[in-house]
Amino acid sequence: MSDLTPVFEPLAFTSLTAEETEQRAALFLDQCRQRRTVRDFSSRPVPRSVIDNCLLTASSAPSGANFQPWQFVAVSNADIKRRIRVEAGKEERAFYEQRAPAEWLEALAPLGTDANKPFLETAPWLIAIFQQRFGVTASGKRIKHYYPTESVGLATGMLIAAIHNAGLACLTHTPPDTGATAQ
Amino acid sequence: MSDLTPVFEPLAFTSLTAEETEQRAALFLDQCRQRRTVRDFSSRPVPRSVIDNCLLTASSAPSGANFQPWQFVAVSNADIKRRIRVEAGKEERAFYEQRAPAEWLEALAPLGTDANKPFLETAPWLIAIFQQRFGVTASGKRIKHYYPTESVGLATGMLIAAIHNAGLACLTHTPPDTGATAQ
Repeated sequence: MSDLTPVFEPLAFTSLTAEETEQRAALFLDQCRQRRTVRDFSSRPVPRSVIDNCLLTASSAPSGANFQPWQFVAVSNADIKRRIRVEAGKEERAFYEQRAPAEWLEALAPLGTDANKPFLETAPWLIAIFQQRFGVTASGKRIKHYYPTESVGLATGMLIAAIHNAGLACLTHTPPDTGATAQ
Repeated sequence: MSDLTPVFEPLAFTSLTAEETEQRAALFLDQCRQRRTVRDFSSRPVPRSVIDNCLLTASSAPSGANFQPWQFVAVSNADIKRRIRVEAGKEERAFYEQRAPAEWLEALAPLGTDANKPFLETAPWLIAIFQQRFGVTASGKRIKHYYPTESVGLATGMLIAAIHNAGLACLTHTPPDTGATAQ
């Protein structure tokens, strides 16, 4: 059996009626329209089991050749969140004060964002999302991933849906590109 | 008011109890784990209103600077689906028979895919998803989009969640890169 052979799981599929399908599609839309991108978070704790389940939902997303080219790192430790905020703050200031083209700053202005990101400390959880351009099989073989950016986007879209569905708020925050990651 | 000024909608937010949050996160995971990537579709019609609602859900996703750099084209017309299948088939054959590196074909082999994509005709709807690297404001100004690939991924992830939630099956199918789109 090749390293790449997936395990196929049989599916017991129950068809919904046309009416149920229509109702569920409308209800999910109503629910998702309640989602907002927020930048002020309550520090109220969220159980790790909730984050785990949302991440497992995200990782059920399809991906190029089913290689699941993502890594999610969930951080709730206050000291690590502080260090992330401090390091991210340096990049944010360099971005807003030096690197950002005028057009980009103009695009961001109506949203009221700036280099200050207190939510990196106040939110109970940070989820760092990494894209893996290459993977390593169980036997140590290096394999290329296909459509990793698109695939990580799919998983993150499902993550946002899962978090929102659980009654929580989230912010999709992209730290300024330092050159460490290729866009 | 600038072309770029967003309209902010107030949110009446109802907090869930911790117990509700836990239950909903677990339930959504169970539900999403029932999703499969399938390549054999029923031709049973799906009402346009369902597709519309799923696409509206997708377009509620966050995006870089909230520029929503996506375009969804839903196709149910049998003749257009047939023409898409014919044209896509040419590219698929060129990919599988000539362009695809051996490593890529090896990655796809366990999934059993080949150049033949009958689902492009049998599925009641095809949704073509386009990424816009640039946009045009109401006054005709050309503006750059930020993180368009990631943003379209988020919207598509929410689309997959919406379609699955409605009891329907979908396949995320990436036509071979003909050079018309930059990866």
